[in-house]
Amino acid sequence: MISAKALPPTNGSSNGFHRPLTVIALDAMGSDKSPGPELDGAILACRSLPVHILLVGPQDKLEQGLAARPSLRKRAIEIVPASEWITMDDKAVAAVRSKRDSSMRVGCKLVREGRAAAFVTAGNTGAAMATSKMVLGMIPGVDRPALTAVLPTSTGSPCIFLDVGANVDCKPHHLLQFAVMGEMYARSVLNIARPRVGLLSVGEEEGKGNQLTREAYPLLQSAGLNFVGNVEGRDLYNGRADVIVADGFIGNVALKTSEGLAKMVRDLLRESLKSTITSQVGAMLSRRAFEDFKRRLDYSEYGGVPLLGINGACIIGHGSSNARAIFNAIRVTAQFAESGTNKRIAEAVAGMHDASAAVTVDD
Amino acid sequence: MISAKALPPTNGSSNGFHRPLTVIALDAMGSDKSPGPELDGAILACRSLPVHILLVGPQDKLEQGLAARPSLRKRAIEIVPASEWITMDDKAVAAVRSKRDSSMRVGCKLVREGRAAAFVTAGNTGAAMATSKMVLGMIPGVDRPALTAVLPTSTGSPCIFLDVGANVDCKPHHLLQFAVMGEMYARSVLNIARPRVGLLSVGEEEGKGNQLTREAYPLLQSAGLNFVGNVEGRDLYNGRADVIVADGFIGNVALKTSEGLAKMVRDLLRESLKSTITSQVGAMLSRRAFEDFKRRLDYSEYGGVPLLGINGACIIGHGSSNARAIFNAIRVTAQFAESGTNKRIAEAVAGMHDASAAVTVDD
Repeated sequence: MISAKALPPTNGSSNGFHRPLTVIALDAMGSDKSPGPELDGAILACRSLPVHILLVGPQDKLEQGLAARPSLRKRAIEIVPASEWITMDDKAVAAVRSKRDSSMRVGCKLVREGRAAAFVTAGNTGAAMATSKMVLGMIPGVDRPALTAVLPTSTGSPCIFLDVGANVDCKPHHLLQFAVMGEMYARSVLNIARPRVGLLSVGEEEGKGNQLTREAYPLLQSAGLNFVGNVEGRDLYNGRADVIVADGFIGNVALKTSEGLAKMVRDLLRESLKSTITSQVGAMLSRRAFEDFKRRLDYSEYGGVPLLGINGACIIGHGSSNARAIFNAIRVTAQFAESGTNKRIAEAVAGMHDASAAVTVDD
Repeated sequence: MISAKALPPTNGSSNGFHRPLTVIALDAMGSDKSPGPELDGAILACRSLPVHILLVGPQDKLEQGLAARPSLRKRAIEIVPASEWITMDDKAVAAVRSKRDSSMRVGCKLVREGRAAAFVTAGNTGAAMATSKMVLGMIPGVDRPALTAVLPTSTGSPCIFLDVGANVDCKPHHLLQFAVMGEMYARSVLNIARPRVGLLSVGEEEGKGNQLTREAYPLLQSAGLNFVGNVEGRDLYNGRADVIVADGFIGNVALKTSEGLAKMVRDLLRESLKSTITSQVGAMLSRRAFEDFKRRLDYSEYGGVPLLGINGACIIGHGSSNARAIFNAIRVTAQFAESGTNKRIAEAVAGMHDASAAVTVDD
């Protein structure tokens, strides 16, 4: 078995990469059409990324799947057996408890045992959060994990938006922790030197907002962040901030509202284009532009969303992931694992705890 | 001076309409480019709607503006002088207190005195809410006014979404009142016989949500509404419910997130289309489709958002309103005034107060 830290140098050179491979535990049974997208995505990743994949799931099924996909690079893929898997219809907490040999659980254990540097799944988000929290625990000093979306903006650089669904009814110090975690992720993975951090509210002035944001504002202001103050919903997509923090209820509503609007826009545009012959010709001619446009908004290009605060690098992909989305999720996961984000988060949170007792209140 | 209730029959017939005109008080100094859009919008409205407009603002300026716009129908427009106006940069509450002869205040007074059936402004939203609440008061039994957006959906029928910004930190019984008000608006103005009412949350099951939505759920369930349970952000645009209620903080974030995403989509699409000659030709050919698409998403087609709960019909338009948007705002305002929505809301809320003492708790 290959260690997450020290890989045999032959493996690195045989892959054409001159540094040790990063070992990624991939839940092979996560996506809606699993394991096909996972198998194809893993093969794609091994071709072009310095990674070694531990493919977690039912051994027979995965062996058959790999056998049906001849590829030179498959030596960088290894199957780790797990007899069960959690479906999208499973109730998260119940499934995590009852399916003790699930691919998610086994994948997270590989990280805990140091056999993988990171875990990635396109499966049930609630179950992935619960499993990773249970198996890996939290970064010391962090109270709650935050599901973190990477949104496209009109400036081309992404906006880190958290929490988008892990926690509702947050306390002000949770928002502060989200801000610190998002800032570290933006620094470490996106290489933004001094990320601008905004607090999602309903007006720009300090006094605007609800009780939670009004109480969180001074905490963010005095935390040594590059805090740009309150931002509004429209700022999620205009690049006004690199990191935007919100309670998980608000973040989830904002993200799903965006998904709903984007879908309606696509549907209406398609319908409008179909309505006249001239438009049909026009649509045919502008196809390349639409493909470009779609790619820029496409979830699969962003791969997956990190679950920050977990004591281990975890990325959750979309259930509808195709092979390209899985490939990108693996790419982002490897970046996350290599970035040292979690170590930096732990240091920053420890510094905050020293600086202010108010911040250390547990929920 | 013409009364809001009984107009001289000559006026009705001279306009080509065979029923009394609805008198609308229009803030002439609301929009960013006021009073131009208001003057043009009022003239458009008088040409095709059974309305008489009381144009509220500085007499000289409005007289000059009307004189510069020759039209047969101007006899249905009357200037009501107001020496001051509230700008977009004014702090709402301070401006409402200090500008005692503002066009908003005079406009609301016209409704209070029965000289106008409804008030419409494209001005400062916060000031309009504060002024109308102060001058007109609340419908008995309603605790808070709700700013109500009318969203387009992929099914073609709109979704009534409230509150989108009047109230943060709502209590469960406020959400119930919003539900009742939204339902009555959907019935009376949009003619939906049995509007489906949803509660905006982060999952469909009853137990999903934050403390507020979990406590509001049973209230909505037992209120005799056609309650479809929790809905998610994406349901704002897919027609799953006719009315969706949320705390004003959530509603405002969802609405502004939508605005931001729509703007980014337009920008990216334009950029993608410009990127190749073929696409330029394609874009030219599909222009009609884009115009159709834009129209279906365009704010100006929806005119303005009602402020429900105020004891008088009030509509707030977008600051960037053009003449067409003002025309549509007047059209919607007249519908609102004629619909009897407020009377029905008062009856429904009174019934609720009788039925359950828990609902009558004041905030």
